[in-house]
Amino acid sequence: MYTVYGDYNSGNCYKIKLMLNLLGIEYRWVAVDILNGETQTPEFLAKNPNGKIPVLELEDGTCLWESNAILNFLADGSAYLPSEPRLRTQVLQWQFFEQYSHEPCIAVARFIQFYLGLPEERLAEYHAMQKAGYRALAVMEQQLKRTPFLVGETFSIADIALYAYTHVAYQGGFDLSPYPAIQQWLGRVAEQPGYIGMLD
Amino acid sequence: MYTVYGDYNSGNCYKIKLMLNLLGIEYRWVAVDILNGETQTPEFLAKNPNGKIPVLELEDGTCLWESNAILNFLADGSAYLPSEPRLRTQVLQWQFFEQYSHEPCIAVARFIQFYLGLPEERLAEYHAMQKAGYRALAVMEQQLKRTPFLVGETFSIADIALYAYTHVAYQGGFDLSPYPAIQQWLGRVAEQPGYIGMLD
Repeated sequence: MYTVYGDYNSGNCYKIKLMLNLLGIEYRWVAVDILNGETQTPEFLAKNPNGKIPVLELEDGTCLWESNAILNFLADGSAYLPSEPRLRTQVLQWQFFEQYSHEPCIAVARFIQFYLGLPEERLAEYHAMQKAGYRALAVMEQQLKRTPFLVGETFSIADIALYAYTHVAYQGGFDLSPYPAIQQWLGRVAEQPGYIGMLD
Repeated sequence: MYTVYGDYNSGNCYKIKLMLNLLGIEYRWVAVDILNGETQTPEFLAKNPNGKIPVLELEDGTCLWESNAILNFLADGSAYLPSEPRLRTQVLQWQFFEQYSHEPCIAVARFIQFYLGLPEERLAEYHAMQKAGYRALAVMEQQLKRTPFLVGETFSIADIALYAYTHVAYQGGFDLSPYPAIQQWLGRVAEQPGYIGMLD
């Protein structure tokens, strides 16, 4: 059985939980407390030298890290990852977009507001993250106005990757009302058979 | 023929140039000046709504963006991208590591030092990027002490992705002398048949 090392409040970890539930794969969840330094112990660093969650541990002890790499591993051969080369590239394109242009803004704004309670000394950073996060949302909105999912007609791991932090963006102070296509897409993701919520 | 929209000094664009040269694929290069706003014109945003280079334009006008997604597209089926699922996941793992934990520190430190000349008002950010960049280099060093390339015995697009900004890290003030395994690996990458330098 797979073991996931994660935190239920982390969008990156939620991607793996959602994927495993959609695929109907059983797994063991080991809670790791980031704020308590549990990703920096020698035992954890042996699983992921970069000291981050999630980590997926396979039956033979092999550890895979980076949430989007794990999604590609789990979805390979399923309906959630197209095999056609251009579509597969577009899935990766949105996942790299997520890790470079979306998560570092939206997840960090959420961290500063939801976990830290908007401390004075991080307000300037918070406002910069807000601005960059809205830019990323605008890029998603443009695509989702044209197609029901990020890569065309079919729900894929590109949607899982971007759903994770978009659906809790309000916890980082983001107002999605100017993004109707994103709001409709959030609804379509939540209707997928096997869907599970972040804290379910 | 493929068209690459890029900047020769950008590590992200160099990844595509290096890959195309290693594969012996002919291409047309269109220089795009970021500092002059050329990635924010309506024409360019029609190619990449996220307004970033590189973009790979295929013969039929399809545009692919995100450097590492493009690498996966170009390398698919070649010796530079393993087909075995775990190895393929490890390639992605290092590429997501590059975009999240390496590039935002090392490329940004390089930008502040090499392009902007270390202006006073960005020194605090520069020092933060230095610290985080050295952490990323330490993660690479640990892997490269054990295996000649990032994913085992074979040169792959994981190496191309991380070579791009590591080999010019000195332009961001990084001293690689405490990282002998990285230095040897840089040499092994430069010895690959079909290798081309960033400004060649």
